[in-house]
Amino acid sequence: MNEFALIARLTSGLATNSSVVTGPGDDCAVLEGGRPGYYLLLKTDAVVEGIHFTAEAAPEQIGHKALGRCLSDIAAMAGTPLAALVTIALPKDFQPDFVERIYHGLNQLAQRYRTAIVGGETTTNPERLLLSIVVLGEVPRDKCILRSGAKGGDALFVSGALGGSLAEKHLAFEPRLAEAQWLAAHFDIHAMIDLSDGLAGDLPHILQQSNAGAELMAQAIPISRAAKLQARAHPSEKTPLQSALSDGEDFELLFAAPSRQAVAILDGWKEQFPKVRLSCIGRVTRDPGLKIRDKNGVRSLNAHGYVHFA
Amino acid sequence: MNEFALIARLTSGLATNSSVVTGPGDDCAVLEGGRPGYYLLLKTDAVVEGIHFTAEAAPEQIGHKALGRCLSDIAAMAGTPLAALVTIALPKDFQPDFVERIYHGLNQLAQRYRTAIVGGETTTNPERLLLSIVVLGEVPRDKCILRSGAKGGDALFVSGALGGSLAEKHLAFEPRLAEAQWLAAHFDIHAMIDLSDGLAGDLPHILQQSNAGAELMAQAIPISRAAKLQARAHPSEKTPLQSALSDGEDFELLFAAPSRQAVAILDGWKEQFPKVRLSCIGRVTRDPGLKIRDKNGVRSLNAHGYVHFA
Repeated sequence: MNEFALIARLTSGLATNSSVVTGPGDDCAVLEGGRPGYYLLLKTDAVVEGIHFTAEAAPEQIGHKALGRCLSDIAAMAGTPLAALVTIALPKDFQPDFVERIYHGLNQLAQRYRTAIVGGETTTNPERLLLSIVVLGEVPRDKCILRSGAKGGDALFVSGALGGSLAEKHLAFEPRLAEAQWLAAHFDIHAMIDLSDGLAGDLPHILQQSNAGAELMAQAIPISRAAKLQARAHPSEKTPLQSALSDGEDFELLFAAPSRQAVAILDGWKEQFPKVRLSCIGRVTRDPGLKIRDKNGVRSLNAHGYVHFA
Repeated sequence: MNEFALIARLTSGLATNSSVVTGPGDDCAVLEGGRPGYYLLLKTDAVVEGIHFTAEAAPEQIGHKALGRCLSDIAAMAGTPLAALVTIALPKDFQPDFVERIYHGLNQLAQRYRTAIVGGETTTNPERLLLSIVVLGEVPRDKCILRSGAKGGDALFVSGALGGSLAEKHLAFEPRLAEAQWLAAHFDIHAMIDLSDGLAGDLPHILQQSNAGAELMAQAIPISRAAKLQARAHPSEKTPLQSALSDGEDFELLFAAPSRQAVAILDGWKEQFPKVRLSCIGRVTRDPGLKIRDKNGVRSLNAHGYVHFA
């Protein structure tokens, strides 16, 4: 049983109440109970030694990544973080200095995005370090962006450049909070998600929840320098495009917006965020399924970034 | 370095913002950002196999305990839970049925206290099961009860009976949500905490934060049947009173209220909650320090439940 099948089994029939706007299945839970005109956003995420980072990672980067993942999910709803809790499960032989440096990385990121760290929990996990973070955020009700609103004909956009993140970026990415808030304030963004499982893995979440399909343009997909270097070093493995589609841990924004706003979005973004690339990578289709167009034509694409030859 | 010293080091200089009413150091974080007239409460807590439960524990009870610990902290602020997130870190050889039964225990408790389960995270922790729970709650601003408000002369109360919890109760306790909300609605409760480290371990948190001391009456401390059985089975170990003072994991309410309200509190409680004992166990003193009075006089008590002979 894979992770998604297990989650589907676990999340059926869960307790609910009138505070729930959107439960499991989007980037954050969306809840009533906030200030007038606002929804609350709630997100948790965990990183585990040997799985999400190696023992060689700098402790500051481990803290940065753990909090950054949750902030990236708040960004995907166009929200603003308010407060975070930090749970740290420590192996028996932990060094207090190492833990302090984790907190330092976490705290620096929190300060940059005005997120208060308001508590947490230290406990023991004898064999390996585990960090679990919670972020509470808020979003104006009319600006909250779900995964489910993409419409046939929408243009698809992605921030940054994709692939090869494990070489460096996954420990040092910046959550796209300012970018997402700016998008929601100025445009009619229909659906958004942050990329953690790769473009080919995460775009289907938008498509399924929007009851739509998509056609990507292979040449428009922004490929990171790290993905190109990786392909050059290991020519028998993934091509740069496959890396961009499937490596994961990009923590970039993927969103759908009306195609008539595409030029204004691209122009405005370039002015607001000159250092962050924005690419229009394809369009949403009424027909379901994920397809990719390259010089050989249009073919189906699976969630691992592989093309199905018809 | 013990847990408290590490936490003190980690929680100095943390990022903060204007949403923070009470940060680390109380049962929950208290935050602005809620409905008009309400504060938000945020709490996280983790349980780890081999530390907070054994491999023999029924999975339903593991789920119950994990969520119950957070709900008990919401109760300690007289709050109402709104929503919970569940992070489950699974060993490699996990059985889906076992995980489903954990969720079942969790979900039953959530339904009983109208807490929506709105998401979470499944991840891998190869050697042992770890559950981390988040609960978001709210509390009317004028009814939020901190640890810091106890005053010299206040009467001290404890719900239930203490000690011996590891025999059974720690996996099956009921969070005292209804009781705490009733107390806050009808009386002027000055300070409250839920007992997780034992009466002698947790009362000092109220005393330090309230800049006060306390004198307990040994004969008034409610001792559980489990603590008495345990002392009979192991006569060379803790006395029943020592168990009640120091075993921990009681998840009962300890609170301070003006002594002139003591009779009304005891009478009203008996009528409202006839099945749950409430005991007046001593009083808050202006002089710092924790003391206990028994037939031999008044002596100092340390956080481990041991009397210092003068």
